[in-house]
Amino acid sequence: MTGTTDAAAMLAVALREARAGLAEGGIPIGAALFGADGELLGRGRNRRVQDGDPSAHGETSAFRAAGRLRGYAGTTMVTTLSPCWYCSGLVRQFGIGHVVIGEARTFHGGHDWLAEHGVRITLLNDPECYDLMRDFIAARPELWFEDIGRQEAL
Amino acid sequence: MTGTTDAAAMLAVALREARAGLAEGGIPIGAALFGADGELLGRGRNRRVQDGDPSAHGETSAFRAAGRLRGYAGTTMVTTLSPCWYCSGLVRQFGIGHVVIGEARTFHGGHDWLAEHGVRITLLNDPECYDLMRDFIAARPELWFEDIGRQEAL
Repeated sequence: MTGTTDAAAMLAVALREARAGLAEGGIPIGAALFGADGELLGRGRNRRVQDGDPSAHGETSAFRAAGRLRGYAGTTMVTTLSPCWYCSGLVRQFGIGHVVIGEARTFHGGHDWLAEHGVRITLLNDPECYDLMRDFIAARPELWFEDIGRQEAL
Repeated sequence: MTGTTDAAAMLAVALREARAGLAEGGIPIGAALFGADGELLGRGRNRRVQDGDPSAHGETSAFRAAGRLRGYAGTTMVTTLSPCWYCSGLVRQFGIGHVVIGEARTFHGGHDWLAEHGVRITLLNDPECYDLMRDFIAARPELWFEDIGRQEAL
């Protein structure tokens, strides 16, 4: 699971989660955690709206779905959107070695910081991910800013 | 809620959570989120063992329990233990302005980084918090290292 094709295949799993979230009335960000051999360990999506749970970002939902693990060596987190500080902190704390990112144009999170600390970053600049978030932010800015704690933005 | 007495009162809430977690067979770390007027918004504890949920750290549990909020201006997160990167990222992303920490001797997380980014840090060096974690780590090192993703430590 190292090439561009494999990264794209992983992103497709995250993107399906994001689209499912949108269909539920939620914030369309999805993620998945893959093991060293490319096996899917867990997948999830932002569930702020669906569950009334502000702690359920895409990445934390995927991490949670993977259950308890003894370690994260060789794992890859794929996410439709650049990880916020909360999700970047998750990646750093648990030693997830690789993050595949759909897009970082609508939101630039902590992935440069992760790279500085040895995490491999693959930024795909995926147009579907970009269109999805651009359209969502335009339609529901108050929900998006709530999700990243930007009270001052509105 | 700005003085040492108030910080100690807030810590007592987190410490009760930590002790409840220990009694359940869990990792004894507790936290609580307080509003600008000192009102309790949410409290919680590490639930890795209880719920099989690796995403449920003390701080994230308290944040979750507080539910959806439009912003975190003026809030204080109190935690029995220095916040790991995951929980530090939560604090930074959501703009929680003040973190009260029971102890940072058994584990030194990301609170210096938070201070560099403008978060007020109150470190209480509380002996009860220290004893609780020291004894727990001695008794259950594998569980503790799992909780912070330190696969190499065992």
